[in-house]
Parts: sequence; structure tokens; C-alpha cells
Amino acid sequence: SGPLRLAVVPGDGIGPEVTAEALKVLQAVVPAEVGLTPTRYDLGAEHYLATGEVLPDPVLEEIRSHDAILLGAVGGKPGDPNLPPGLLERGLLLRLRFELDHYVNLRPSRTYPGTPSPLSEEVLAKGDVDFIVVREGTEGPYTGNGGALRVGTPAEVATEVSVNTAYGVERVVRHAFARASGRRKRLTLVHKTNVLTHAGAVWWRITQEVAAEHPDVEVDYMHVDATMIHLVTDPQRFDVIVTDNLFGDIVTDLAGAVTGGIGLSASGNINADRTSPSMFEPVHGSAPDIAGQQVADPTAAILSAALLLEHVDLPAQAAAIEQAVLDDLAEQAGAARRRTAEIGDAIATRLS
Amino acid sequence: SGPLRLAVVPGDGIGPEVTAEALKVLQAVVPAEVGLTPTRYDLGAEHYLATGEVLPDPVLEEIRSHDAILLGAVGGKPGDPNLPPGLLERGLLLRLRFELDHYVNLRPSRTYPGTPSPLSEEVLAKGDVDFIVVREGTEGPYTGNGGALRVGTPAEVATEVSVNTAYGVERVVRHAFARASGRRKRLTLVHKTNVLTHAGAVWWRITQEVAAEHPDVEVDYMHVDATMIHLVTDPQRFDVIVTDNLFGDIVTDLAGAVTGGIGLSASGNINADRTSPSMFEPVHGSAPDIAGQQVADPTAAILSAALLLEHVDLPAQAAAIEQAVLDDLAEQAGAARRRTAEIGDAIATRLS
Ligand SMILES: CC(C)[C@H](C(=O)O)[C@@H](O)C(=O)O
Ligand SMILES: CC(C)[C@H](C(=O)O)[C@@H](O)C(=O)O
Repeated sequence: SGPLRLAVVPGDGIGPEVTAEALKVLQAVVPAEVGLTPTRYDLGAEHYLATGEVLPDPVLEEIRSHDAILLGAVGGKPGDPNLPPGLLERGLLLRLRFELDHYVNLRPSRTYPGTPSPLSEEVLAKGDVDFIVVREGTEGPYTGNGGALRVGTPAEVATEVSVNTAYGVERVVRHAFARASGRRKRLTLVHKTNVLTHAGAVWWRITQEVAAEHPDVEVDYMHVDATMIHLVTDPQRFDVIVTDNLFGDIVTDLAGAVTGGIGLSASGNINADRTSPSMFEPVHGSAPDIAGQQVADPTAAILSAALLLEHVDLPAQAAAIEQAVLDDLAEQAGAARRRTAEIGDAIATRLS
Repeated sequence: SGPLRLAVVPGDGIGPEVTAEALKVLQAVVPAEVGLTPTRYDLGAEHYLATGEVLPDPVLEEIRSHDAILLGAVGGKPGDPNLPPGLLERGLLLRLRFELDHYVNLRPSRTYPGTPSPLSEEVLAKGDVDFIVVREGTEGPYTGNGGALRVGTPAEVATEVSVNTAYGVERVVRHAFARASGRRKRLTLVHKTNVLTHAGAVWWRITQEVAAEHPDVEVDYMHVDATMIHLVTDPQRFDVIVTDNLFGDIVTDLAGAVTGGIGLSASGNINADRTSPSMFEPVHGSAPDIAGQQVADPTAAILSAALLLEHVDLPAQAAAIEQAVLDDLAEQAGAARRRTAEIGDAIATRLS
């Protein structure tokens, strides 16, 4: 089937730095008989400011012809007068997620040995944290539906429409149940059914329906606000969380923060039907304030590359990256901060 | 002006237990020359299951004639087949907030001496946490706008519409700036302007406009997902957070959890124009699983009563309650758990 064709979108801020390390690790681990041909796409804030282009259709079509996409981070400085808010997020990142139908936004969270957590010893002593969030990626409040009237006047009205379909909810809920079956068999639906009653009803009903087909999986429901509390007081209780696009965004940043930090949080934007390439990226943003200084932690990008390999049917290589990261973290516990490239080198060296 | 006419809505689950203690404390602290006449309204899940009534119009009108409302908690067991999801939340709690135009949902968060926090000593060592969240209370995704088509079929589509008006955003942002001016003069707008661009633009623009009138207040913007991280790694950075109805719901549960727990989190649903009575309630829910056992902490309800007194121009009495709570917490640090009524008694005794 030829070498793995990878579209690489380094993006903005710390994106290029962390992506370089993820690529380094991929080069070290992909078997020579498979091979890897990365193609770089310069897209993002800098590219937009220089050219006025966000994601031209022909570029999207080119990207579509790859086996997978590795993405760094997208987004300029909030408040930059030359960057309308959301232009890159909606026009580039979300456009890729929506056009390529990445309906499973997969975000694993676990504590790593030796990694500092902002949680107390008492909470951490309850045991290891190890759960995944299956965030819906193609609907909910992220559709861009809505609009504004009398913009900029005291009579302005602006709306955002969350769109939820049985079609969209069912496919992601099924995926979450399948993952739960292969794990500790506990699934938690997170929503706000007591306020968002229309959307909540679809999520609730479909979760119950699919649950009936999975008697082995224990099913739980939690309001998104209560989830905040449990994530900081007993994160060990979670195995698989399934939730909508916006709640998933919020929950996964908190999940990352409480388990070793957002510098370790990987994600996959997955088209589980494989009708278009899936996209792998760290959960963290572009962090323009620390860009170009080699202080960003590339581990989240490297773990995202592991998720990528799992998706393209190289599970042994994915597991090898995860093990190398684990070993690296264990060895480094308490050691001085390393530069971005040093971390990538250390992990790549373990693998080659 | 006669005695303070209080509408008391104990509600569901642990609501009645914690409300009884808050009333006890109010009775102890309101000066005899002012006086207090509470009127109890039995509304909530139990009342609905017995009568089919949620909030009859004449009851709403009666409640409206009071000086303030003290509320316990509203909401039955999630999944109770006799309680359609959201029926009580939308029909009772949110109806009160909307009909009485409680546009400022005020939620203070602070660490108390001796109270355990799920955060690490390293994070807590950075200093005391002391901030308020000014959550918009009458619009955003809470309006109930939206609907569903082909309900219960595989072709179902359900929408939720977040409605944001310049009118609604401006009044709450102005209120937040006024509070910031009287505090540490630092205001953080929390939103998701990079995805919810229509709503985000209104919030962003109005915050900038009002900021121009308050050169003394330092203004900051933070995405709601990034806010999760900061709340667990450096909550000390916040002074006043202003945000929309849904983000405020999520942020305040996390804020409560990281500072001594949701058992201490008070809130006021405030009509700052005083055109109708404001309503004070703990942030926590009805917790049906522990109801009636005298294990709920009434401190959040008691601190909500303090916010109530502040609002009805009894600031000295409000401060006295806060001090009594502080003293009680300091004395109890490390002591055995007390029953609900014991905590109320201990605080009331300090005040009489
Ligand atoms: C950059 C932004 C559009 C994005 C999101 O909200 O999905 C990010 O926060 C994420 O979680 O991947
Ligand atoms: C019970 C529910 C409707 C309510 C809300 O979402 O506002 C509660 O969570 C709160 O924060 O007061």
C-alpha cells in the first residue's frame, strides 16, 4: 500500500516546534518497509497575515488525499486587530474537522508516574486516573449556525445555534460504547439535560438505546457542572466519558490539567468510517506568548502521533511511543526542565 | 418600612434541610427593630409529583410581592420517569430567574482557613483565593429557545439557541466592572469567542467599551477551556470573572470545588435594578441521594443568606454571618463531621 502519506500542518505559535518533535519520533518508529512521506502545509495565522488565505479549496482537496493529518496548533493572539476572532479556528481547524467528518474527537487522560498534578495528595492517593473522553466533533454549538442583527448597536442580538441530530449523536455514542467495552466497561454521559432539554433528550435517549445493546457496560449520567467537581475530587471514577462538542472542549482541558498537565494531552479527530483522513493534534492551543522559545512540551504532540499510528494500523509502534514517553517521564521526574527539542530527541532515541 | 418579607422555597432533596439552617441564622441576626416574616412556598419535585403543579402564576405573583427569596435547591432524581428532564429546573428555578429578571448571578469563591481543598499544597501555597463570578442570568443558552423535529426517530434534529443581546450583556458587564472597581480591580471576561463568534463578538465589544470607562480596572480575556486550567493551577489570579449563563454555571461549580468545596458556595440571583425581589441559593443542587439524612453542609445556604442581607441593605448583619462562618470553620478544622442542624446551631449561637 506504499508509504504512509502524512499531511503536516504545523500551524501557529508553538505548533511548529512541537510538530517537529512529533515528526522526529514518527520517523524513528515507522518501520522502513512501511515508510513515511510527510507533506508540509503552511496554514495558520502567519500564512493568513501574509497571504489572506485561510484554507483554499484545492489545498483542502490535497490534504484529503493523505492517509492522516498531523496538526500542531491553530490560532493567533486573541485580540489581534488583523485577525478576526475565530477566523482561523472556524476557517481552518474546524473546517478540517467538519469537512473531513471527524465525528470522534478522542482525548485520553491519565496520570503518569512522576508528573506533577495540581491535585492534592489525598485525591491522587485514591488511585491512578485513566479515562478517555469521546467528544462529538461535527455538531453541537460548533456548527457556526446562528448570526447577529444590528451588529455594533445597543439593539444587537446575536445567536448561536447548537444543532444535534440523532444521526450524529448515535454514531459517536456507539463509538464510545465500543471503546468502553474494550476498557473498564463504564460509560458516563455528560450533558446538561436539565436546561438544554431538546438537545439533552436526544443524547439521553440514544445513550439509553445503545446501552440496551451493551448490558456489559455500566452507564452513568452526569451534568456538566457536577462533572467539574468530580474531575477534581475523584477523577478515578471515570472510564469513558461521552459528550457534546462544547462540553467536550471544556471537560478535556480540565481533564488534561488535573492529570499531569495539558502538555501531555493528546487528541485524535477521527473519522471512524475511514471515508477521509483523520487528524491528530495536541489538546493545547498555539500559546503565542511562549512561541519560538523551545520551552513548549512536545509530549502531547508526540502522544498524538501515537494515536495516529494506532489509527493507521500500526498499534505496536503506537504502543512503543507510549512506552517511551512513560519511561522518559519516569526518568525525568523532578529533573530540570528540558528544551522542546531535547524532549523530542530523548523520546526518539529510546525508539531507534 | 416594616419587617423583611421573605419568600422561602426550600425545594427538593437537601434543600429543606439547608434552608432551615439558613433561616435559623437569619432569625438570629436580623435586628428585632427590623423583623423578619418568612412565608414558605412548597414547590419542587415532591409538590409536583403530588399535585402536578410546578409554579402556578398566582404563586409567582405572591412571591413577587416579597423583599427577597431564599431558595434551597430544585431538581428531582435524574432519570425519574415521572419527572420530565428539566421540568422543575426550567419551570420553577429558571422561571423565577427569568420572570424576576435576575440578570446578575453572583457567585463568590474564596478559600477558608482550615477547609480542605482538592488542590495541591503547591498550588494553595501561592496565596489565598478570593474572586467572584458574575454570571449572566437571563439569556445565553438558558433561554429555552430551540426545539426538536421528528422526535424519537433516527431523523431527529434538536436545537438549542443561545440568545445574546447588547442590552443583556451590557447591564451585567457594567455590574461586573462596578464590583471590580470596589475590589482588586481586575476583570476577566470568559467566553469562547474563537468558536461562538456571533455571541463572542457582543461580549468582547461591550467589555472593551465598558473597559474604556474604567481605566482603573485591568481587563483580561480567557477562553472557557483555558479557564479550566487556570482555575486548578493558579486560581489566585482571578478577581472578577464575568461570563455568560452556561459558562458561568460550569465555571462556578469548578470554582466552588477548588475552594473548600461546593458545600461553601453561595449565590445570589440579583435584579440589580430592584424592580423585583432577588433570590439567594446555594450553588449546590438538591443531591437527592443524601437528602433527609442531616449530612448536607448548610454553610452555602447560610452564606447565601448573608448575600441576601447585603442586598436588602443590612451589610453589617451580612458581614457578621460571614465572620461567624469563618470562625466556625477555623474552629472546626480537622474536627469530625457535624450534622446539618449542628452546623446551623453553631453559627446561629455565635450570632445571638
Ligand atoms: C482552537 C479551538 C477551536 C479548539 C476547540 O474549541 O475545539 C481547541 O480548544 C480544542 O479543544 O481543540
Ligand atoms: C439546577 C440548574 C438549572 C442550575 C443551573 O444550571 O443554573 C444549577 O446548576 C445552578 O448552577 O444554579
